[in-house]
Amino acid sequence: MTSTKVNVDLVRERAKCTFDLKELIHFVDGGEEITSERKAFEETVLAIKELKDDIPEDYLSHKERYENAIRKACILRELRVRHDQNKPLIPEKPTYVYNILPATIKDISPFFLHESMFIATIWGLMNDEQKAEWLPKAMEMKAIGTYAQTELGHGTFLRGLETTATYDPETEEFILNTPTLTAYKWWPGGLGHTVNHCIVVAQLYTQGKCHGIQPFIVQIRDLETHMPLPGVHVGEIGPKMGFQTANNGFLGFKNFRIPRKNMLMRNSEVKKDGTFVRSRSDKLTYGTMVIVRVNIVNDAAMQLSAAAIIAVRYSAVRHQSQPKPNEPEPQILDYVTQQRKLFINIATGHALRIVGRWLWKTMLGVLQNISEGNLEQLPELHALSCCLKAVCTQDCTAGIEQCRLACGGHGYMKSSNLPLLYGLTTAAMTYEGENTVLLLQTARFLLKTWTQILEGDTKLNPTVLYLLNFAKPTDYRWENTNQGIIKGFQAVAAGKIKTAYDTAMKHVGAGKSQEEAWNLASIQLVEASEAHCRVIICEVFSNEIQRASNTLSPNLSRVLQQLVELYLVHWALEKKGDILLYSTISRDDIAALRIRYEELLALIRPNAVGLADGFDFRDEVLNSTLGAYDGRVYERLMEEALKSPLNAEPVNSSFHKYIKPFWEKAKL
Amino acid sequence: MTSTKVNVDLVRERAKCTFDLKELIHFVDGGEEITSERKAFEETVLAIKELKDDIPEDYLSHKERYENAIRKACILRELRVRHDQNKPLIPEKPTYVYNILPATIKDISPFFLHESMFIATIWGLMNDEQKAEWLPKAMEMKAIGTYAQTELGHGTFLRGLETTATYDPETEEFILNTPTLTAYKWWPGGLGHTVNHCIVVAQLYTQGKCHGIQPFIVQIRDLETHMPLPGVHVGEIGPKMGFQTANNGFLGFKNFRIPRKNMLMRNSEVKKDGTFVRSRSDKLTYGTMVIVRVNIVNDAAMQLSAAAIIAVRYSAVRHQSQPKPNEPEPQILDYVTQQRKLFINIATGHALRIVGRWLWKTMLGVLQNISEGNLEQLPELHALSCCLKAVCTQDCTAGIEQCRLACGGHGYMKSSNLPLLYGLTTAAMTYEGENTVLLLQTARFLLKTWTQILEGDTKLNPTVLYLLNFAKPTDYRWENTNQGIIKGFQAVAAGKIKTAYDTAMKHVGAGKSQEEAWNLASIQLVEASEAHCRVIICEVFSNEIQRASNTLSPNLSRVLQQLVELYLVHWALEKKGDILLYSTISRDDIAALRIRYEELLALIRPNAVGLADGFDFRDEVLNSTLGAYDGRVYERLMEEALKSPLNAEPVNSSFHKYIKPFWEKAKL
Repeated sequence: MTSTKVNVDLVRERAKCTFDLKELIHFVDGGEEITSERKAFEETVLAIKELKDDIPEDYLSHKERYENAIRKACILRELRVRHDQNKPLIPEKPTYVYNILPATIKDISPFFLHESMFIATIWGLMNDEQKAEWLPKAMEMKAIGTYAQTELGHGTFLRGLETTATYDPETEEFILNTPTLTAYKWWPGGLGHTVNHCIVVAQLYTQGKCHGIQPFIVQIRDLETHMPLPGVHVGEIGPKMGFQTANNGFLGFKNFRIPRKNMLMRNSEVKKDGTFVRSRSDKLTYGTMVIVRVNIVNDAAMQLSAAAIIAVRYSAVRHQSQPKPNEPEPQILDYVTQQRKLFINIATGHALRIVGRWLWKTMLGVLQNISEGNLEQLPELHALSCCLKAVCTQDCTAGIEQCRLACGGHGYMKSSNLPLLYGLTTAAMTYEGENTVLLLQTARFLLKTWTQILEGDTKLNPTVLYLLNFAKPTDYRWENTNQGIIKGFQAVAAGKIKTAYDTAMKHVGAGKSQEEAWNLASIQLVEASEAHCRVIICEVFSNEIQRASNTLSPNLSRVLQQLVELYLVHWALEKKGDILLYSTISRDDIAALRIRYEELLALIRPNAVGLADGFDFRDEVLNSTLGAYDGRVYERLMEEALKSPLNAEPVNSSFHKYIKPFWEKAKL
Repeated sequence: MTSTKVNVDLVRERAKCTFDLKELIHFVDGGEEITSERKAFEETVLAIKELKDDIPEDYLSHKERYENAIRKACILRELRVRHDQNKPLIPEKPTYVYNILPATIKDISPFFLHESMFIATIWGLMNDEQKAEWLPKAMEMKAIGTYAQTELGHGTFLRGLETTATYDPETEEFILNTPTLTAYKWWPGGLGHTVNHCIVVAQLYTQGKCHGIQPFIVQIRDLETHMPLPGVHVGEIGPKMGFQTANNGFLGFKNFRIPRKNMLMRNSEVKKDGTFVRSRSDKLTYGTMVIVRVNIVNDAAMQLSAAAIIAVRYSAVRHQSQPKPNEPEPQILDYVTQQRKLFINIATGHALRIVGRWLWKTMLGVLQNISEGNLEQLPELHALSCCLKAVCTQDCTAGIEQCRLACGGHGYMKSSNLPLLYGLTTAAMTYEGENTVLLLQTARFLLKTWTQILEGDTKLNPTVLYLLNFAKPTDYRWENTNQGIIKGFQAVAAGKIKTAYDTAMKHVGAGKSQEEAWNLASIQLVEASEAHCRVIICEVFSNEIQRASNTLSPNLSRVLQQLVELYLVHWALEKKGDILLYSTISRDDIAALRIRYEELLALIRPNAVGLADGFDFRDEVLNSTLGAYDGRVYERLMEEALKSPLNAEPVNSSFHKYIKPFWEKAKL
């Protein structure tokens, strides 16, 4: 790319940047080596001509899109098998390979669940013998699989799943059945027409007794012909807001038999005679769920970052209005209302990537301890991953929409890629644990902690230690500093946990059952959980940037500190109602925060494009008419429009077929 | 529909309802006669077999969808011509005919802009002679048209439009040109391949001088062949989040000539010799814009209502989890967190319909006065319609998303219709005035009013009269009553207007220009405008329900009062940070509001399904697997999935084409 082709505004913006762009890119990636490795991989993949589409996906029919996705997924899978062969199954850092999917499949790969949940479940829930058989098949994709847990009638409540697996000691087989319409498996990615295997979660019946849900590996299609096997009813569930190419499917069984050894036997076992033996704690299955949720935090952060890059670059290129007569139209990035919409999302992109990396590290430590038999930290990790998954997907979804709306009408065009980013991220608010349900999970942990505190127990988990400072009901003495704001959020979280606890107790005192009291307090509980999560994000973001500043140049460090402060002040203003309730914050403090917020917008303004560039997303990854590096916004919008098959003909057939006959009729 | 087929939970819910459903339906429609007329019209339209789709739209390609939409739009247009022939162009009440579009076209009709802006502009901006020529052509759709104003480079800033119309006195013609890429018209609905005419807004040049933007009527396609005329470059702009069938287009001109009489001459004129004469105030053009914005308020309210019906019915049918061992799974509607997500949207649906009707009436009065030459109320009406359009579309968009997310994964399916409702409503946040820009328009009016007050002028417009009570800086003495909350919101609005005014003045005092000061105060200005708008909505909703209670039965009246209170308490809690800043509200008051909020959820719970039914949307209009009257949610989800063309074949061709070869390769 030569600079002569780059939009003049972007050239000017880049010249203004006060920090070293490369330094930021390495910081964002987590090190120079990772940057090089990422770039090399992107280069390899994006050089493959066959991965480029002639016609944008959005013009194709539902069926054509699926077929095109399979075509590309096979090419990518081949690459990935080669690339990943010497890698550990759970990498040291959150995977960045994700980054090439938006540039190739564009939407979700039909192999997505194969590559994530199918392989992870084999790895996590099979015993060694099973693993030796199935892991190679799965890695070579001879067994293409998915993870079939959710049913038409049950998502959240796993104990309510209706699919049954009844053991028959005569033949040493399980008989799978879908007893009702609501028992149909529904949602698993790739299930429709792609996979020939799946992990099926079903109620285990043996020796006349139900032993709750257990996972089974089930072949559902013939390996040669790909025909569904007799007793299997399988298909796709139809179009969605996003995930158009994920091939989410449904699955029903009618007296479908599988061998005994197809039950995943790491934690439990069914003996030949049908005896059920539970060998290890169920809690271990939390492990896989935590990994998936931590990945979601990182994916959401990536998608928000992409949206922020697009909106910031577009806002630098776009000029509009004329506040002063006879002066040129300003870049819309110079409007303070626009800065308010965008800069928080740059800050959030950084914050959540850093939180995601921290959470990944924390998780690896806990998994290590688990492998040594120590399960102590699991509840805290579970609570953390639940609320972070919920709050991050919520913030990122809202942020992406804000970025889209900040691009006006053009942001509504699919060619901006903002609608797809939204569709993918908002889905994560529901899958792998519906957000409200997850927040209530964290709330349960918080209320247990609060009970500990009331009982005088001071040995708390590290992430809730702060609550000890707020055990006695005193207003926190507010200070308008970064640390002051974080302590203020801690006071709010503590106050809300206390309110939720008191509300639940009040209802119990009034004769309600525990469960009713929990339901009646649930609005408070959700809010407490969110407030706690905000504390974690603010603390981690602030601490990690502080820590990094020892190794970063002063120029970059200063800019990152501005983002931290912006994030803190933004949320302090957003939550001023809560802070007013639980601290001594005054009107003057709030007025000062507001002024500081506007100062920060002005401070960040000259570096806005540099910060967007710093996420270092290739144009192919952004896949956006509005967000490309060179800023040729209007040219790209027109080029994309001209690809419409409708534009290939000057007159559409509907004119002769419908409009002319309509005129004829109207004459009568 | 026989009751035996209806889901048992819904039957039970309906039996619990404490009010007369018919009475509510008549109230919502605005009278029993209107209900009958609406139902008869729906009956006529929905009986037409040709309007039903064999394959759901979402499976079709972009091109097929357009062609199908034209087919149906022609059938509908024929009906509508017959139905509307004796109706006034601006009806007495907001039009309910809209309601059948979601049941037929599903998305937006390619004739939408013809039926709204094209006809409205002919009616509003042509002189009598022009109108006599064009109105019949447009009504018969011999001239199919659209309204081409926005360009690739300009939406908000009309003075910046680049398309030129240069008068040539030799031939008595205007010469249209698109001097740059950014000057291309971009967005007009139907422009791509549907219309043969359009209103083009262009910079008028005559006698060597630019006279600013003027509207022209331009034929762009041959009436017989539909081929674009020489000098016209026209096509569609490509796929969007919604509006897939709206056929939004682009348009460029190269030395394209039109007769002098094609300039719309009601307000201005170009004489034969090229002399430009401005005859009437430009302000009059506000009129059309106000009508469009008022319609948007009503459409958004309808779409939110639809989403609320779907989510409430689904939540009554859906059972999940088991808080108490050995008890059946509760309806998710019984979870307080779910009630919190849904009931506010029922209340908002009612509130905004009522506000929409009130605004329509207000507008008719002002338009009447204008026709008598009195323009005095125009600025207030403009300010009102700007902030109401912005806040209503914002609230409805957020509300629809909340309803969708409340339906979990199934809400993400297109067959729920919630994604489309979202896509259509969020578009309205940008079109016909971007929301932030509109809020700043209202802010300008509010700051003028504040200046009036500071100057001791007490003759204010009715909707801002309340500001007089807060002219002196004293904290409002909070009361936890409906009227108390409304006064609290007034105090907040006044406080925010004052803060915005002071901020702007401070910057002027510090030497900034008026324009810079305005920009620096703009966050405050937007917030002031939103706060004022909330006052209006709360007042109108509360007053109108109060007024209606004289004629309604006590049972229905009680339920509607609960919705008003829920709306007020919800927003009081949402805005408690602002209220704490501008009133004497105490922690105890807030705690009491929270308790009252939860009491209201419990009070509304038994009537939730009845209230959803009360909006009286036919199943065809809701077009949702989750929201149909009979609650056959799971059956419908499966029926819709089975319509997928992918499900027509047991094995998709991609298996043989891509997966098998991939296996072959992997062996090497």
